[in-house]
Amino acid sequence: MSRSEFVLALAGGVGGAKLAAGLAEVLPPEALTLVVNTGDDFRLHGLHISPDLDSVMYALAGLHDPVRGWGLAGESWAFMQAFRRLGGEDWFQLGDQDLATHLLRTQLLHDVSLTEVTATLCARLGLRHRIVPMTDDPVGTRVLTDEGLLQFQDYFVRRRAQPVLRRVMFDGVESARPSAGLIAALQHPQLSAILICPSNPVLSIAPILALPGVRAQLQDRRVPVVAVSPIIGSRAVKGPAAKILGELALPVSALGIAHYYDGLLDGLLIDSSDEALCTSIRGPRIRTAPILMHELADKRALALTVLDFARELHR
Amino acid sequence: MSRSEFVLALAGGVGGAKLAAGLAEVLPPEALTLVVNTGDDFRLHGLHISPDLDSVMYALAGLHDPVRGWGLAGESWAFMQAFRRLGGEDWFQLGDQDLATHLLRTQLLHDVSLTEVTATLCARLGLRHRIVPMTDDPVGTRVLTDEGLLQFQDYFVRRRAQPVLRRVMFDGVESARPSAGLIAALQHPQLSAILICPSNPVLSIAPILALPGVRAQLQDRRVPVVAVSPIIGSRAVKGPAAKILGELALPVSALGIAHYYDGLLDGLLIDSSDEALCTSIRGPRIRTAPILMHELADKRALALTVLDFARELHR
Repeated sequence: MSRSEFVLALAGGVGGAKLAAGLAEVLPPEALTLVVNTGDDFRLHGLHISPDLDSVMYALAGLHDPVRGWGLAGESWAFMQAFRRLGGEDWFQLGDQDLATHLLRTQLLHDVSLTEVTATLCARLGLRHRIVPMTDDPVGTRVLTDEGLLQFQDYFVRRRAQPVLRRVMFDGVESARPSAGLIAALQHPQLSAILICPSNPVLSIAPILALPGVRAQLQDRRVPVVAVSPIIGSRAVKGPAAKILGELALPVSALGIAHYYDGLLDGLLIDSSDEALCTSIRGPRIRTAPILMHELADKRALALTVLDFARELHR
Repeated sequence: MSRSEFVLALAGGVGGAKLAAGLAEVLPPEALTLVVNTGDDFRLHGLHISPDLDSVMYALAGLHDPVRGWGLAGESWAFMQAFRRLGGEDWFQLGDQDLATHLLRTQLLHDVSLTEVTATLCARLGLRHRIVPMTDDPVGTRVLTDEGLLQFQDYFVRRRAQPVLRRVMFDGVESARPSAGLIAALQHPQLSAILICPSNPVLSIAPILALPGVRAQLQDRRVPVVAVSPIIGSRAVKGPAAKILGELALPVSALGIAHYYDGLLDGLLIDSSDEALCTSIRGPRIRTAPILMHELADKRALALTVLDFARELHR
């Protein structure tokens, strides 16, 4: 990465967090801004919970649980057991360590913005790369399903994304302002690439694109926009992305990702095993690479690959 | 205990909680109301914390930690460690299980009174005896010390009660209404005794007595008021009660307790080892018994002794 480059990466939860960690491994702090979805932020038991910010923050700090996929490694559940004993609702699991993040964020939010809270939490975890929420304003995701209208976490966690999804709504997004960090990144004089991490496009990336002006700025871009597919073959690496593509009548493959991001992408990185799709995808340039990330080395390698791809497209 | 008896017991923290547990062992639920100090309730990290209600509730449920003296047995501290890592204040220890109580109480308080919240929490722990807060209104204890005016938990926990105490203030107590449970107990047609548990008189029992009308109703009583000394020899069984008696220029012994409760007591139960004090205490009748409570059997025995003593005084 030369000194004159600056990368803006859009990320949601777990898949996005993996590539975000890879990017932070290979880019210096001043050359990267990670903009994170807050559309699934919600309040529970009086706590402000930002699942995607936590996933990205924990991943960069190396504190994430690689097996469970969400939350902190070495997490314990004594709170949850006691809460259950007292008759508290237990459909959303709150780990003992994770609670510290929620409690502190909720407290700090009384005085400062989510952007500032995030910066504080990241600094305390020793992170040097910039992680910013997509907005400091409240955006609440709701989904229209075959079982009716559901709050996002109701659908995603309590109902395990089982209802058939018809439409997704981001309440408040029309009046939400993109965060200063997102605006600054979009206007950064050295901006050389915009990356869309392999997060769920419909649930995690769409809220960011729905913020006033963001989709338009991406469409008017002077730098390449490159996405990494969250789908390999006909399956999501993690989560319900494949199921949702099908429910929205999109092809359940990387092709569906290309359709979903229609008009936005200059490049799409898909898995090597999906090479056969190269000829059927219209629009973005396609590159194949192993996109499954297990170890930090995989994340780093994928980050280098996607940056390299973006650099080629920038020429 | 005959069917026609009803006992009101005033309790504070740990010492009071032990006798409270003993009373619950030997009295049926309908024959006992435990009125608990809320003067040291406070908010921390957005949580409403009621230390004395928790102590009594945990003691009756057999969930208390008998070694540490406060909080829950088998407690873990993963939250606290993570909170510290994030730079959160850690002078007040919040156990993982204990947090469940604080979080649920705080949430329930949005909709119902502390009396109702306490009843709910007790019911969920399977308790059948009535535990009621002294008031549903906010009362905040502050202490004037040689280091200035301190919030109670600042003095008691953060400064470990080390500053020299000059005076104690219960902010808001003049306008606080005794809880319905306290009023009902005082007016109970079968009321046969009022017990003052071996809690810190200055910090834990005084707030209850300072509620409008409570001291007057105790002074006008038709039933005996019996206290159990929290002091053995010249030492408190637990906590700073002895130190505080000295700082308030009261005798540092059960004699100081008698002085402090001057005009309120018909009986004072002191430790067998303090028999020599019997002749120097003026006012209440004195009985001696082993008052140190380790096991449940000790609590039960002391409860039977104090009830027996009150019964004698009632004749």
